[in-house]
Amino acid sequence: MEEIRIEANGNIGPIDSARIPRFAGAATYARLPRLDQVSNAAIKIVGVPFDAGVSYRPGARFGANHVRESSRLLRPYNPALDVSPFENVQVADAGDMAVNPFNINEAIETVQDNALALTADGASLLTLGGDHTIALPLLRAAAERAGEPVAMLHFDAHLDTWDTYFGAEYTHGTPFRRAVEEGILDTEAISHVGTRGPLYGKKDLDDDRRFGFGIVTSADVYHQGVAEVVAKLRDRIGNRPLYISVDIDVLDPAHAPGTGTPEAGGITSRELLEILRGMRGMNLVGADVVEVAPAYDHAEITGVAASHVAYDLVTLMADRRAATATKDAS
Amino acid sequence: MEEIRIEANGNIGPIDSARIPRFAGAATYARLPRLDQVSNAAIKIVGVPFDAGVSYRPGARFGANHVRESSRLLRPYNPALDVSPFENVQVADAGDMAVNPFNINEAIETVQDNALALTADGASLLTLGGDHTIALPLLRAAAERAGEPVAMLHFDAHLDTWDTYFGAEYTHGTPFRRAVEEGILDTEAISHVGTRGPLYGKKDLDDDRRFGFGIVTSADVYHQGVAEVVAKLRDRIGNRPLYISVDIDVLDPAHAPGTGTPEAGGITSRELLEILRGMRGMNLVGADVVEVAPAYDHAEITGVAASHVAYDLVTLMADRRAATATKDAS
Amino acid sequence: MEEIRIEANGNIGPIDSARIPRFAGAATYARLPRLDQVSNAAIKIVGVPFDAGVSYRPGARFGANHVRESSRLLRPYNPALDVSPFENVQVADAGDMAVNPFNINEAIETVQDNALALTADGASLLTLGGDHTIALPLLRAAAERAGEPVAMLHFDAHLDTWDTYFGAEYTHGTPFRRAVEEGILDTEAISHVGTRGPLYGKKDLDDDRRFGFGIVTSADVYHQGVAEVVAKLRDRIGNRPLYISVDIDVLDPAHAPGTGTPEAGGITSRELLEILRGMRGMNLVGADVVEVAPAYDHAEITGVAASHVAYDLVTLMADRRAATATKDAS
Amino acid sequence: MEEIRIEANGNIGPIDSARIPRFAGAATYARLPRLDQVSNAAIKIVGVPFDAGVSYRPGARFGANHVRESSRLLRPYNPALDVSPFENVQVADAGDMAVNPFNINEAIETVQDNALALTADGASLLTLGGDHTIALPLLRAAAERAGEPVAMLHFDAHLDTWDTYFGAEYTHGTPFRRAVEEGILDTEAISHVGTRGPLYGKKDLDDDRRFGFGIVTSADVYHQGVAEVVAKLRDRIGNRPLYISVDIDVLDPAHAPGTGTPEAGGITSRELLEILRGMRGMNLVGADVVEVAPAYDHAEITGVAASHVAYDLVTLMADRRAATATKDAS
Amino acid sequence: MEEIRIEANGNIGPIDSARIPRFAGAATYARLPRLDQVSNAAIKIVGVPFDAGVSYRPGARFGANHVRESSRLLRPYNPALDVSPFENVQVADAGDMAVNPFNINEAIETVQDNALALTADGASLLTLGGDHTIALPLLRAAAERAGEPVAMLHFDAHLDTWDTYFGAEYTHGTPFRRAVEEGILDTEAISHVGTRGPLYGKKDLDDDRRFGFGIVTSADVYHQGVAEVVAKLRDRIGNRPLYISVDIDVLDPAHAPGTGTPEAGGITSRELLEILRGMRGMNLVGADVVEVAPAYDHAEITGVAASHVAYDLVTLMADRRAATATKDAS
Amino acid sequence: MEEIRIEANGNIGPIDSARIPRFAGAATYARLPRLDQVSNAAIKIVGVPFDAGVSYRPGARFGANHVRESSRLLRPYNPALDVSPFENVQVADAGDMAVNPFNINEAIETVQDNALALTADGASLLTLGGDHTIALPLLRAAAERAGEPVAMLHFDAHLDTWDTYFGAEYTHGTPFRRAVEEGILDTEAISHVGTRGPLYGKKDLDDDRRFGFGIVTSADVYHQGVAEVVAKLRDRIGNRPLYISVDIDVLDPAHAPGTGTPEAGGITSRELLEILRGMRGMNLVGADVVEVAPAYDHAEITGVAASHVAYDLVTLMADRRAATATKDAS
Repeated sequence: MEEIRIEANGNIGPIDSARIPRFAGAATYARLPRLDQVSNAAIKIVGVPFDAGVSYRPGARFGANHVRESSRLLRPYNPALDVSPFENVQVADAGDMAVNPFNINEAIETVQDNALALTADGASLLTLGGDHTIALPLLRAAAERAGEPVAMLHFDAHLDTWDTYFGAEYTHGTPFRRAVEEGILDTEAISHVGTRGPLYGKKDLDDDRRFGFGIVTSADVYHQGVAEVVAKLRDRIGNRPLYISVDIDVLDPAHAPGTGTPEAGGITSRELLEILRGMRGMNLVGADVVEVAPAYDHAEITGVAASHVAYDLVTLMADRRAATATKDAS
Repeated sequence: MEEIRIEANGNIGPIDSARIPRFAGAATYARLPRLDQVSNAAIKIVGVPFDAGVSYRPGARFGANHVRESSRLLRPYNPALDVSPFENVQVADAGDMAVNPFNINEAIETVQDNALALTADGASLLTLGGDHTIALPLLRAAAERAGEPVAMLHFDAHLDTWDTYFGAEYTHGTPFRRAVEEGILDTEAISHVGTRGPLYGKKDLDDDRRFGFGIVTSADVYHQGVAEVVAKLRDRIGNRPLYISVDIDVLDPAHAPGTGTPEAGGITSRELLEILRGMRGMNLVGADVVEVAPAYDHAEITGVAASHVAYDLVTLMADRRAATATKDAS
Repeated sequence: MEEIRIEANGNIGPIDSARIPRFAGAATYARLPRLDQVSNAAIKIVGVPFDAGVSYRPGARFGANHVRESSRLLRPYNPALDVSPFENVQVADAGDMAVNPFNINEAIETVQDNALALTADGASLLTLGGDHTIALPLLRAAAERAGEPVAMLHFDAHLDTWDTYFGAEYTHGTPFRRAVEEGILDTEAISHVGTRGPLYGKKDLDDDRRFGFGIVTSADVYHQGVAEVVAKLRDRIGNRPLYISVDIDVLDPAHAPGTGTPEAGGITSRELLEILRGMRGMNLVGADVVEVAPAYDHAEITGVAASHVAYDLVTLMADRRAATATKDAS
Repeated sequence: MEEIRIEANGNIGPIDSARIPRFAGAATYARLPRLDQVSNAAIKIVGVPFDAGVSYRPGARFGANHVRESSRLLRPYNPALDVSPFENVQVADAGDMAVNPFNINEAIETVQDNALALTADGASLLTLGGDHTIALPLLRAAAERAGEPVAMLHFDAHLDTWDTYFGAEYTHGTPFRRAVEEGILDTEAISHVGTRGPLYGKKDLDDDRRFGFGIVTSADVYHQGVAEVVAKLRDRIGNRPLYISVDIDVLDPAHAPGTGTPEAGGITSRELLEILRGMRGMNLVGADVVEVAPAYDHAEITGVAASHVAYDLVTLMADRRAATATKDAS
Repeated sequence: MEEIRIEANGNIGPIDSARIPRFAGAATYARLPRLDQVSNAAIKIVGVPFDAGVSYRPGARFGANHVRESSRLLRPYNPALDVSPFENVQVADAGDMAVNPFNINEAIETVQDNALALTADGASLLTLGGDHTIALPLLRAAAERAGEPVAMLHFDAHLDTWDTYFGAEYTHGTPFRRAVEEGILDTEAISHVGTRGPLYGKKDLDDDRRFGFGIVTSADVYHQGVAEVVAKLRDRIGNRPLYISVDIDVLDPAHAPGTGTPEAGGITSRELLEILRGMRGMNLVGADVVEVAPAYDHAEITGVAASHVAYDLVTLMADRRAATATKDAS
Repeated sequence: MEEIRIEANGNIGPIDSARIPRFAGAATYARLPRLDQVSNAAIKIVGVPFDAGVSYRPGARFGANHVRESSRLLRPYNPALDVSPFENVQVADAGDMAVNPFNINEAIETVQDNALALTADGASLLTLGGDHTIALPLLRAAAERAGEPVAMLHFDAHLDTWDTYFGAEYTHGTPFRRAVEEGILDTEAISHVGTRGPLYGKKDLDDDRRFGFGIVTSADVYHQGVAEVVAKLRDRIGNRPLYISVDIDVLDPAHAPGTGTPEAGGITSRELLEILRGMRGMNLVGADVVEVAPAYDHAEITGVAASHVAYDLVTLMADRRAATATKDAS
């Protein structure tokens, strides 16, 4: 019952699995300490159990905890990037935001307020959804912290730039139109990756393009390969402050059945992870992994994929912060 | 592709399974005709795909269609009551109401308006939910049509007489408090059946009693048996206009895993059906079967139970209407 | 890899679980020896992987092996009846019949021929289905071996006395009408137990009654209790040669989701087992357990129930044979 | 309850999801109008709930409705081909054929008769299975309508050119041998795509080759890539009237668990969709998507894949018809 | 992220669900405070993620956390006993013991040491398994704290009084034989409830009886009813210090599919809860709920049942402690 | 009930599926004869139902039988390699080893003894796990039979070269460190393929490299392609005696959900099969397929993949033996 943790470089790391089995204890993300167990954290992982913005299969309210449960196997060294993210900086699980399930507008405010509060000390924030509605307040907070509109990589089967739905301005299909309208995205450097599936009409694409989005479809990833895609994306983003939003439905339903609006023909989890790893060194200021709906998952296929996506995102954040810290120190 | 239907007494019945296999064709409830396929219907079955009022596991938005899919095996003669409900009167499936998934208040209005429209011709209405929020507008319509407050049998693990939740007055936990406040329930004759599980506090029970509700717990059904329970309930209701609301979570999770707020220790589907059959001859003016959440169902265990509950409710309605018609004719 | 078996009274029993774990080795029923491993067997368990006769959810072709898999936990002493069935007589698993999946008539012949062959040495036969179509050839063989029409206890949600379906005379809904027509049932002593759910019309009941069937509905089991039901059934059957046919859908879908035509309001597995045990001492000459459709099962709920039903049936057979043998010997 | 539909170019399109949520209402394919709701349709989608021809896991009888349920998310514009198929021509859901589940020969006749009836007005037919047995009568009708043998692209893990099985000439393993024997396939232009898995013997390949089939294995798709495969296939087919038959088991079990005879090592849904899109402009005269067995599906992984396959097939048909119409008009 | 909790009588209760949705936050049992969040606790709930002692389906190592997840809906007032357990005394979740998964003997020592440590301050312990092996060290600790052998109510399909298995003395089938041998059970007052299913031989029963156990089979519960069973059990136990061990497989597989050695014909969750409630006022000194194997559960059927069982056990403990405290104070 | 088998070249092959449906009869691997049904076998397939060595999700004890069940569709000709493995040599299913589930050390001895016994006649052994712990005794036996350390291809998400875990030297995470220490691997020719996911630290990689392992990560397979990977591996192995160990978690969770320690970003089943086929002609002396945990599988996705992997391994063994025999004969 005593928690035995791995510690390095003065940072409190995950529970030591050599002493406490991985299946034991509460599931914080990657078995990291809770935020209240560390004095301060450079990277915070927070859950937003909210799905009142979904248009089809609900259930993403259970997503964050499902990703945490599915993250019990994550170990502290990331060989793909040769980084030990939890050694480089202090990472902690900030728990869940308490969001009103019956009032979307209030929920959005709560998320924005909480995101600002969590980053007031300069911490980077990785958010586990919840549905995609929450990307809007998270982008607001990210832009406010960055002091400028942010670049964005948006992994998703869908554009999420629709206008309104049943009169609702704020749903999981609209965050990025709202974000463009609000001027919090750097429209020189925003891209959808993994897009596929039917749209309402050609106007969807026209609008999207007008907002400035580039599109790398799932088919593009197949035909061009990850290396080429990565090169193009890096080129577009440059050193801008970058927010990465991953709707897990960017993966093929085979790799992510546990989501609300699945579309066939998606990318694989390996492609997604390799593209993310290709973003090494970018100025990643915030990220989210959303739309995990556990009621439709099986054997944590989706949860494990999402937990690995989050792990590579945390690694990118930790690596960048460590590199910057080193440079600052030198 | 031509629909071959059973017809009797001038009524258009379900598709003839001796000619078109049960697994073929679109799933209306019990393979009955759509409302647009009959000139008028004395009993209408309507779906309300809505679950924005749920507090825990969502998904009841898919409930009505799941019950319809699970009703393909229903045959036209009910031996438990010796009634052929689809011969006695015209029964039809009115499809689904188009309800706003992002605005509970608007949704409630839509349900009320639709329920009134569907019963304007004197038809009885059986509603397939959706979550329990919809019982309020359905009761409003039932009371308006009855011209007086209605008696109610409420089968549920829960009381659903809470006050507000996250500031929301209208959720799936509050319909019956609202209904009492609005004066649309006859508080001399309202009962919960199947109640069980922990509450927030003793005040929940006190409030509930103050509103006039009687309680037959799930344990009472065990200790007293169905016959005694039926006698007490009939005695209390008398000949008042009666609305029956069945939250499928009244069943034990073994009999209804596919629901949003399961509680152990519930009644069996046999007990529920036998109690319903015990209501024969009562003045049933409306009914609903709600809270079927298919994402949590398995092999249609819940869907089949709900479809049988609905079938006995339709039988009670048809039997009463036929009996009344006969009496009127004599 | 060497099979270590329990032996008693000269009989070869199941694999010794104290030496070979229950989860190891091939799944014969109750880990009993294959028929080719014993010199002769007084009770034979045979599978019929056939489901071309089903009208709704198919899959019973995988039923027999699923029941075998689900029988790995069965131990050799039956405390409910104080009998060690595998000690009393030699019991063996005869494997599966090779039945044509595309030709119902040929399939019926194959089942009949095989059943006769398996019982030519005086053995009792317990058959694992497969769909209920196979009850007809099994009854033919049982009657031929008995030298007279047999009494029957038929546990089922349905009557299975329909006439034809899509022009087919032999389906899973018709075996007992055919059997009555063929004169192989003793119509003084045939009963359905557990019946429930809608029918096509009152005529179904009239026909059924005309054929001589008594009906104990699922509701009757609830209201009368097992003891009373057992007494009535025993009284009716007397010492006639008795065939017991158990359609697993006699159980409520909670207790048997893995079946093809589920009906709510069924009996529990405890009630079914207790009624069967109540048949102790009857002249049981053959039995089947059918309609297990594994694709719809979960965690072997249905498979375990069916394997226990089969176990009590084998126990009744073994007990009767041992008692008779003792009497003969005295 | 009023259906609000998207209309364009005089064609009645799917239900407007901005007004009626996607999860509401009956599931026609892509929420398109029923055939009886339009005056005539240039493309008809029909279901064949039939699986009496399967050799292993049954359940494809429920396939067509499962694909319809899984098609609720399909929107009306296909960006991969820049086509709005439901605007170009009138598309409608013709419901299910009423097929005898107990008589394969009669079933085949019914399918052929219905297919001819549905195409008598010049409409193109897209069929949702059902098992692969139905490809034979569908090809007969297609060839009759084309007035000549048709070219065929056959996506499948298997060859389906076996001879007989248990004496049955017509099963889901034999349609294309029968079709070649009947002279309804243009043996200069018939190809299997996605083939893999063990065979009965080398003779299977020899026979197949002798019938004229080309084979692009699943491994070929991996090693050559989609673009090369598409080029070869187009070259072979030319402008012949083309029938495309998609057995969903062409996909890897990861992408299509819900099928009857799964084989590892399959192609991905992205590869399948990209190959289909590569057929743009071909003279597509008919198509089917078969072997979806929902009891083995999870979270509609298979259903969504099949619904997208059907969507691209409809798009190809609509695009070709629109192009031809334009040319005719000029 | 701030935890808002219900407080009463100076005790810190569960998170306030009116402020933080039930689906948010980490899952302690019933959303109670962690042990480190309270100054001291009169009742402690602890998990033992261990299943190296199982003989068939493993997975109970995930049981404790599954029960916690399934306990999110538990509210603080228990109407069945009219007790608010978390108000009466301080209850807290002590997390999981860190148990060696590869060494049963070491594991047993760890459990015993931890149980003693947790009860050193006089607290009552409720343990969530884990497999039944752990009952032995828990009983040792309970007897040590009681200062005498304890009475025991053992709910289980099995006797768990076998001797050794593959040479192993300590497995989930042997704890109560070991406990009798060690003299830590008061053999005047030990009973199995819910027993059923085949045994290895009559000797199993003879041994068991010799150890002093009474048996109330599952069939006895059916035939005698809960009230009679309760009376007999109370009579036998008297005011002895009582330990209650609940193997969730005491429930029928319909009510508890998620367990390792399921047996058909079990009691219902309602019967189990009513028997437990019948133990009100007994001198309950410790309890466990074991053998929940989530990989075999569905929609938390088993988890919810186990969480309710634990809730009634906590209520009994709290009620007794409050009553004793009141008496002591008077 | 008579087994009708395909025979060729004097070898007894699988049951003839043209006479006995694939879903009938006991599931030996590929429906091959049991070892006791043939006079001797050149290739033996044996199961090891053991999972006491796992560190996370247990259940591999049921793996071997699940792979057998999932192998019913395997036919006798392997077109990918143009080999009829069961004709070339006698292949038989040797059943399961009886392994102590409570004692890892004894279990390892049993496996080693059995493997030596099964190969004493010169037969090649293909083992179906069971967890990866068993690779150590299998390698010991392979090296003893080879008379020298063996080369190894190890397909796995993990390295399995950890040292101890909870003090246990022999678990599923340590077999290959032990094997190197014991000198039974030819460290010039040992490679991991498909590796991915986080590690405990960089030291894991350093240790692994020091032991001699080469690593082809899952990402390498993506970027280099199968052909290049095959060439490198063949080059490294040369003509050394080769053991291939396939942990099914080498596949992405989409392709193998049914395993104990899933990691996102894995290779596809097509890539795995193509790499294996690329090993044609190598001196394959033994192989295993391990870590299939059926409780987490769905629709046999994992089981089918594993059964195909085993099939290609058997084919490689049979092809090599036939080629060698031919050469010897010439």
